Amino acid sequence: MFINAIPDASAMEKKEKTLGITVKKENLAEWYPEIVVKAEMADYSPVKGCMIVRPNAYAIWQKIQDYFNPVIKKHGVKNAYFPLFVPESFFHKEAKHAEGFSPEVAWVGNKDEGEERLAVRPTSETIIADSFAKWVRSWRDLPLKINQWANVVRWETNQTRLFLRTREFLWQEGHCVYENEADCEKDVLLILDEYAKLAEDLLAIPSIKGVKTDKEKFAGAKRTYTFESLMPDGRALQMGTSHNLGQGFMEAFGVKFLGKDEKEHVPWYNSWGITTRLIGAAIMTHGDDKGMVMPPRVAPLQAVIVPILFEDSKQKVLDTVRNIKHDLEAHHYDVHLDDREEYSPGWKFNEWELKGVPLRIELGPKDLEKHQCVIVRRDTGKKQFINLANLKDAIKTSLEEMHNDMLAKARKFLESNLAEARTMDDLAARIKQKKMVLVPFCGEAGCEDYIKERTEGAVSRCIPFGKKAEKGAKCVQCGKDATAMAYFAKAY
Amino acid sequence: MFINAIPDASAMEKKEKTLGITVKKENLAEWYPEIVVKAEMADYSPVKGCMIVRPNAYAIWQKIQDYFNPVIKKHGVKNAYFPLFVPESFFHKEAKHAEGFSPEVAWVGNKDEGEERLAVRPTSETIIADSFAKWVRSWRDLPLKINQWANVVRWETNQTRLFLRTREFLWQEGHCVYENEADCEKDVLLILDEYAKLAEDLLAIPSIKGVKTDKEKFAGAKRTYTFESLMPDGRALQMGTSHNLGQGFMEAFGVKFLGKDEKEHVPWYNSWGITTRLIGAAIMTHGDDKGMVMPPRVAPLQAVIVPILFEDSKQKVLDTVRNIKHDLEAHHYDVHLDDREEYSPGWKFNEWELKGVPLRIELGPKDLEKHQCVIVRRDTGKKQFINLANLKDAIKTSLEEMHNDMLAKARKFLESNLAEARTMDDLAARIKQKKMVLVPFCGEAGCEDYIKERTEGAVSRCIPFGKKAEKGAKCVQCGKDATAMAYFAKAY
Repeated sequence: MFINAIPDASAMEKKEKTLGITVKKENLAEWYPEIVVKAEMADYSPVKGCMIVRPNAYAIWQKIQDYFNPVIKKHGVKNAYFPLFVPESFFHKEAKHAEGFSPEVAWVGNKDEGEERLAVRPTSETIIADSFAKWVRSWRDLPLKINQWANVVRWETNQTRLFLRTREFLWQEGHCVYENEADCEKDVLLILDEYAKLAEDLLAIPSIKGVKTDKEKFAGAKRTYTFESLMPDGRALQMGTSHNLGQGFMEAFGVKFLGKDEKEHVPWYNSWGITTRLIGAAIMTHGDDKGMVMPPRVAPLQAVIVPILFEDSKQKVLDTVRNIKHDLEAHHYDVHLDDREEYSPGWKFNEWELKGVPLRIELGPKDLEKHQCVIVRRDTGKKQFINLANLKDAIKTSLEEMHNDMLAKARKFLESNLAEARTMDDLAARIKQKKMVLVPFCGEAGCEDYIKERTEGAVSRCIPFGKKAEKGAKCVQCGKDATAMAYFAKAY
Repeated sequence: MFINAIPDASAMEKKEKTLGITVKKENLAEWYPEIVVKAEMADYSPVKGCMIVRPNAYAIWQKIQDYFNPVIKKHGVKNAYFPLFVPESFFHKEAKHAEGFSPEVAWVGNKDEGEERLAVRPTSETIIADSFAKWVRSWRDLPLKINQWANVVRWETNQTRLFLRTREFLWQEGHCVYENEADCEKDVLLILDEYAKLAEDLLAIPSIKGVKTDKEKFAGAKRTYTFESLMPDGRALQMGTSHNLGQGFMEAFGVKFLGKDEKEHVPWYNSWGITTRLIGAAIMTHGDDKGMVMPPRVAPLQAVIVPILFEDSKQKVLDTVRNIKHDLEAHHYDVHLDDREEYSPGWKFNEWELKGVPLRIELGPKDLEKHQCVIVRRDTGKKQFINLANLKDAIKTSLEEMHNDMLAKARKFLESNLAEARTMDDLAARIKQKKMVLVPFCGEAGCEDYIKERTEGAVSRCIPFGKKAEKGAKCVQCGKDATAMAYFAKAY
């Protein structure tokens, strides 16, 4: 008998039922919000459309920061912080930018008499370009590479979803200016590569890199590059973007520099961002019917220890697991010891599976006799008996294997759900099959609109790198010459 | 001759003049804004009263985060993120809080038809208490310790100063709830200790810890603890605060838990914060007539290398300094090599002194012959010839010594500017002498008001720990029995 006599077993069972996930993942639209809340990743805010990022998810964001800060530092980018408020007039300086963002802006009435309204930043190109006009004088000041980690607000009128589309979210936004187009474009692509690498290396999420069509590019950009992942319901998710902004913002804000040729030039500008949406991508990609599955490299806890406690051996078992915890922590693992006596081991297993802790370490009196423990992988449920002397190495290996297996599984899913089509009927059929579909495309916005209507929602995701339209290929919609191969899918 | 023939020497000299600080530090009110901007710590924003935190200062904030995150993690505090927007009705739930913050709140008109206005958070007690009401059910959920790094907005009508008082600033705010008062109070004091330690260990700023008078405590708090430093002009600076909020917010938001006694209880709540104001404190405490002096442990660069270049030895010198840079970077120092040829070494010395880089490494052809370099400390100007084989050790030692010397110097300043007074005349005289003055005090707000008037601005800073009023001591103002000894000073 477990020592913990549960005072009110029926109440406990009831709680256990509501604690766990009640929906299967195949029903993603209901499963997703339930897992986000029950795995304590996020909670709804009293302000509609905003979210509370709970510690279990914020830890992922912090690890993304810890990973990405040295990456951009290596490329000469320095962190800074620009004001939350942007004067209304700034938006009107770059016409397309204003048009793109105005509907989503939340405004603060300026309390200073006679002053203009202030936007709560939806993005910071305008206020940063204004500073660049003060800071950039000569070619010696270039390149100037700035990044900020910040909150942004976009007053979405579409349905909001925790992490995926909220009225406030967290992001990093890089803003860099250069002497010439080549240097600017080089960094735009370099950052896109770093992003896709981050998604794979940290979150175990593969993606497809490419360029957005004109219709889908950032408001004010010359070109927008994107990396796109595919969620289990066949909808694509834009994971982040890197924009070549050309010279438009610089001209609008009067940013000029004296070149080596002693003439005046306008610098080239790029900006790039990833957001807390990546956490939503990780939840959807890896979660299962039992709850969250944390990618090991961003998991707030790498392991949870659940001792199997009987009255006569309790003290010995607890002493051992405390030593294990202490030892693993000394090796920089974050480990939780769940030594609560009022819950059964089975209850605890469910709770930690729900929260997605990568490894569970079980240890009972029989294990103790054999100087072993059991480690159980969250993603596969695979159990291994490990001699305590080898535990540290086994933990390390298991976490690495788990990361690699999760990435491989996600890559297999992505690759097996890519398709190609040459006709409109075929495209529509493939979209119905929840595929991301590569088609010859003419580049016209009108064709995108028609495709969206005809497929009940598929939109262009990107023109992927390295896939050119064959000679003579015709746009899947209008039949004119295709200028590119483009992926279409329904999207978040 | 230096190889760099300066094309337009007079223009260069003019630039050099305007680049450097034009005001002596003894004129602190003019010196401070000039150094903040010229050392590229911050810049003015197009929105009045807001600031742009430039990389040279943001690096300090990042190092504060990197230091403090493990500290609070050790105490069981987890990072999270709560919404920027707080519904107006939340403020009215705790009467004193509403009264204290309402004048400073910036409001966003909610775009959703018929919804209430939203405050841009001036602080997050109300929106976090609302979540605690959802998350806290039983004693098992306690203590619950949350922290967030965030921006906050307080629409100051007083004069704003970069870092010290701006309408938007960055901070961390801890919010923790407990089963009982003792646990709550214990952490309030523990965090205050950690804060004062951070200020000394990272920023080399000593402070005085104590409790605020009732008049000066946080709106809605039971008790506010503070740590106060003294600036060179004799004005005190509140460095951060830790509040025991009692049970008021918890009652207002209906936070309750089922205790071990199976009865319902109201938890105890504390909150605590430090802000980007600490960067302003570091600038004022350590800067000098030449510019900023970066505390070594938060400096974005620990050293700058200025090679002395002559045509015939240029390549050898550059090869050597590049190796030095590479070697120091491999040992995790951030080092900049200033190999610009269009500026003279003297110009570069001025520029890096202005920016406050702790150590300058000079190396010319004669040094190269002797296999040595010169290192120069920013705070003292002291030069040392160092054999290149010993450079790493010398850098390490110099940075440590510099930190210790800066802290000792600041402590000496603080201690030699503390005074005591027993009469109103003496207090006023001491305040005129720019002292922070300890006086017997009755605790009445009315006496504080009178003291402020009589001393042309001195306000109570804190009732310091460990200094009780002597038996029979009388309030310096009203002559009634003193309940405490309190520090008064003019303040930022």
